[in-house]
Amino acid sequence: MRWSQTFIPTLREDPGEAEIASHKLMIRAGLARRLAGGLYTFLPMGLRSLHKIQAIIREEMDRAGAIEVLMPALQPREIWDQSGRYSVMGDVMFRLRDRQGRDMVLGPTHEEAITDLVSREIKSYRQLPRTFYQIQTKFRDEIRPRFGLMRAREFVMKDAYSFDTSLSEADKSYQAMYDAYCRIFERCGLRTKIVEADTGAMGGKWSHEFMVLADAGEDGLVECSSCSYAANLEKAERSVPETERPASSESLREVSTPGMRTIEQVSSFLGCPASALIKTLIYVADGKPVAALVPGDRDINERKLQNALEASVLALADEPTILRVTGAPVGFAGPIGLSIPVIADASLKNAANRVVGANRADTHMVNFDIARDASVSEFRDLVVARGGDACPRCGSPLSEKRGIEVGHVFKLGTKYSKAFGAEYLDENGQRLPIIMGCYGIGVTRTLQAVIEQLHDENGIIWPASVAPCQVVIVPLGATPAATQAVESLAASLEQADVDCIVDDRQERAGVKFKDADLVGFPVRVVISDKSLAREKVEIKARSAASPLLVSPCDAVQTIRNLLSQAPGQRQ
Amino acid sequence: MRWSQTFIPTLREDPGEAEIASHKLMIRAGLARRLAGGLYTFLPMGLRSLHKIQAIIREEMDRAGAIEVLMPALQPREIWDQSGRYSVMGDVMFRLRDRQGRDMVLGPTHEEAITDLVSREIKSYRQLPRTFYQIQTKFRDEIRPRFGLMRAREFVMKDAYSFDTSLSEADKSYQAMYDAYCRIFERCGLRTKIVEADTGAMGGKWSHEFMVLADAGEDGLVECSSCSYAANLEKAERSVPETERPASSESLREVSTPGMRTIEQVSSFLGCPASALIKTLIYVADGKPVAALVPGDRDINERKLQNALEASVLALADEPTILRVTGAPVGFAGPIGLSIPVIADASLKNAANRVVGANRADTHMVNFDIARDASVSEFRDLVVARGGDACPRCGSPLSEKRGIEVGHVFKLGTKYSKAFGAEYLDENGQRLPIIMGCYGIGVTRTLQAVIEQLHDENGIIWPASVAPCQVVIVPLGATPAATQAVESLAASLEQADVDCIVDDRQERAGVKFKDADLVGFPVRVVISDKSLAREKVEIKARSAASPLLVSPCDAVQTIRNLLSQAPGQRQ
Repeated sequence: MRWSQTFIPTLREDPGEAEIASHKLMIRAGLARRLAGGLYTFLPMGLRSLHKIQAIIREEMDRAGAIEVLMPALQPREIWDQSGRYSVMGDVMFRLRDRQGRDMVLGPTHEEAITDLVSREIKSYRQLPRTFYQIQTKFRDEIRPRFGLMRAREFVMKDAYSFDTSLSEADKSYQAMYDAYCRIFERCGLRTKIVEADTGAMGGKWSHEFMVLADAGEDGLVECSSCSYAANLEKAERSVPETERPASSESLREVSTPGMRTIEQVSSFLGCPASALIKTLIYVADGKPVAALVPGDRDINERKLQNALEASVLALADEPTILRVTGAPVGFAGPIGLSIPVIADASLKNAANRVVGANRADTHMVNFDIARDASVSEFRDLVVARGGDACPRCGSPLSEKRGIEVGHVFKLGTKYSKAFGAEYLDENGQRLPIIMGCYGIGVTRTLQAVIEQLHDENGIIWPASVAPCQVVIVPLGATPAATQAVESLAASLEQADVDCIVDDRQERAGVKFKDADLVGFPVRVVISDKSLAREKVEIKARSAASPLLVSPCDAVQTIRNLLSQAPGQRQ
Repeated sequence: MRWSQTFIPTLREDPGEAEIASHKLMIRAGLARRLAGGLYTFLPMGLRSLHKIQAIIREEMDRAGAIEVLMPALQPREIWDQSGRYSVMGDVMFRLRDRQGRDMVLGPTHEEAITDLVSREIKSYRQLPRTFYQIQTKFRDEIRPRFGLMRAREFVMKDAYSFDTSLSEADKSYQAMYDAYCRIFERCGLRTKIVEADTGAMGGKWSHEFMVLADAGEDGLVECSSCSYAANLEKAERSVPETERPASSESLREVSTPGMRTIEQVSSFLGCPASALIKTLIYVADGKPVAALVPGDRDINERKLQNALEASVLALADEPTILRVTGAPVGFAGPIGLSIPVIADASLKNAANRVVGANRADTHMVNFDIARDASVSEFRDLVVARGGDACPRCGSPLSEKRGIEVGHVFKLGTKYSKAFGAEYLDENGQRLPIIMGCYGIGVTRTLQAVIEQLHDENGIIWPASVAPCQVVIVPLGATPAATQAVESLAASLEQADVDCIVDDRQERAGVKFKDADLVGFPVRVVISDKSLAREKVEIKARSAASPLLVSPCDAVQTIRNLLSQAPGQRQ
């Protein structure tokens, strides 16, 4: 490939639209351009890398026995009504009407479409197991599209769906996808952390996320410093060491806290740390009010609360409900004397000498002793985990990280197969629902995650496996010998299946070097009259400090060695 | 690949939804399934062929120097306002609103998106010429989606856009795409006819369509029996031989034709052929009424009329206008005594003894002589051409065919570059609009066109180049020797880069043979204990009447020979 014959609009300045490094570099290196919020056009270099990632995914999915299909993005409302997600999806799903006035959607995911297909085509245990996958364009109307391809409104996803006859068979299908995902991200040159995750709107029972650790990541996670436990903050558990109850509690006392409604206001007003306060949160769970107590310095994890209450629907109570059940306006709720069930975080088991709301306007209680002053029905882990908490498996301290979710695997169970009547006849002629799993990789997000993880101040450092081109040849010579050396090397590389680009632009060497580093080709070869006179060419790995000088006839071998050591090949 | 490990749901019966052979076979051979009207899921065999067609297109586009990009399907309304096509596109464009209430569209084509990009990124003649292409999913809300992938609402298209500094450079870019298209369709095994075509809503000056001749085609075309002229009926011209004026005309006479408004009614009532009548059609061209005369047995071509009148907007007049300009209700308009301009088809130059409307209710005139009785401002070719008309180039008779449009190339000129300010600075620092062309291939439609052109009563006859698999191996033996022969041949074929599928199902030989023919693999190999005992395997080309018996060690060579003779390789 010739630089002058393709289209690589590099920029010297960071674009105004970008906040994080990978987004800036994606634009500066001319990989993509923004058409509108969350909508990007892939330019040749970005598209080449995208195709390489897709090829790796396709190879590994095929190797894992998954079967490739391609489903429509545009879908009739009916299948979303059938699963009950037409309303659940809310505003994140793009909705439209066709010219006949029928409601349509743009698929943000394809459980409905694939289960509808399977329910029509698969009838017998002899047709199972099957895992279908596609590499396809998805649409999601994100509240705040940002960070380039990280949170886009149109993006490429690899989604897969497994169909099995039993839970143990479904576990095998899940494990096959889990293993394939490990290989895929490794081959893309990514270091990922696999964490336990919440199943969210997808439904289902169990899931893992593949996270690329990065400060710019939108997800928080914790990992154990000694065992293998790691989990998304939405899901992460913690173990709560038994604490002893302070020997004696002072007696409960009312204090006036005029207008002090928040933890910050009360702790600052009373001159005590936030951890000395207890937050009393009033929720409505399946229509019934309930109070949840958590330490003043911790955030409640509503998912944990919902699970503890075994509630289908959970939401914070509105002002009138709070007034009715506590007798006080918002900001002064407390556990004392409540006639509704009270559930508390496990760390409050022996809490004493704490501050709580008095269930009266402008008033709090100090010297609260939970065993003495309140009637708690249950102590459970209710808060969002954080660094320093104890690992739920081994008790060692957890540390907190940020991550980019690039993959997600779910055990779905029978939620969708029951909704669509996707049943099979077993060996005995019994009709049973098919057990499902679903598996996603954000393909365009993976592309940008590679950049986020592999770059320096000069640009991208592509792994050899997914670089737009593996080698850039920079000709600096004007003699026929130099030209011939360039052409000959380019031809030899092509023959060796190494893709290269020749920077044949009429630009200064400095511009070419800067662009080579910015776009981030794994290997740069400089062919100049000067070095050729000494029968040498200059070969430099993108991540190396200085070049090697090698004989032109050793160039291909040297390049292959460097490529085999580049990120993505090392692991 | 193993048949039991993939997913090929073949059907014995024609599906109710399908009307034409290729649509029936696509469903019956398990290539695709319908999700909703005009929306299809590609199953493994269909997707494999689709990928092969895409690979051919990509290779040929790259070879022609086009640069691959990928633009979003979801687009902001603004760029469509900028080109003026937000309203022109009408109901065929899917429209929606995002959660911020902004108008969005699903791109039915990408002139707007690419020209917007180029207007921002290309500034100098030194960056030109450039041709960009993408293989991407398009959305069109067809009035009547039908014939499977032929007229779908979501489909894959290869669209390309060329940007040049001059008309002659633009001609070169056009020719490069034209030549690439010829190679692409040839490599897909298709016989195509290239016809001159109308530019329609795309705008622009000149275009060619690549047509796959097929009775089920939605487009009509004519081709000359002796020269190379061929054109879409929307565009086709005809030469009109000079006719002599009949020696004497009888005198004009009024006849009563109560309630006779149509050509059929009048000709049947008067007992004369439709060709003895002249239709008088009242149009409004750029706000002014005009009368157009065509022979009673011909259809007017409004595009030709519009061009002849040099009108921007042309539409049939409404009833009040007709009443006002003719003095008669609809159905009785005639050319005599009109005070508006009258234009007539060239074949009416010396027309005499014809029947025309009398501009009075329930009345016609007979013995009309156009030279004597009307004031015609111009004689032009105004009708839709048909078989038997004279070629506009050489005068030989034209013949009429049906075709499926699989490709279309346009010279666009500066319509979009002017709208988006896509300008470049030339060598002298002068700012000029870029000259554009656009080029489309219906990729999914091409897939089905191959089936429409290449099938028999038993199923599809895939060209080797785009077959889902080139070879199907049908094992009929139960001995270890047979099993080993199957595995060994499959491995040898893989090594020879021939893709094959082993039909390892527990089915009768008859079922396997029927499915092999239905799915249409180019070569079928049967390995049975019986033939192996004679050291032979049975190899049959899909299109051959009977198999060859060859030694297992000659099998790969025989298969390669057959594949090289299969459709798509012959040309």
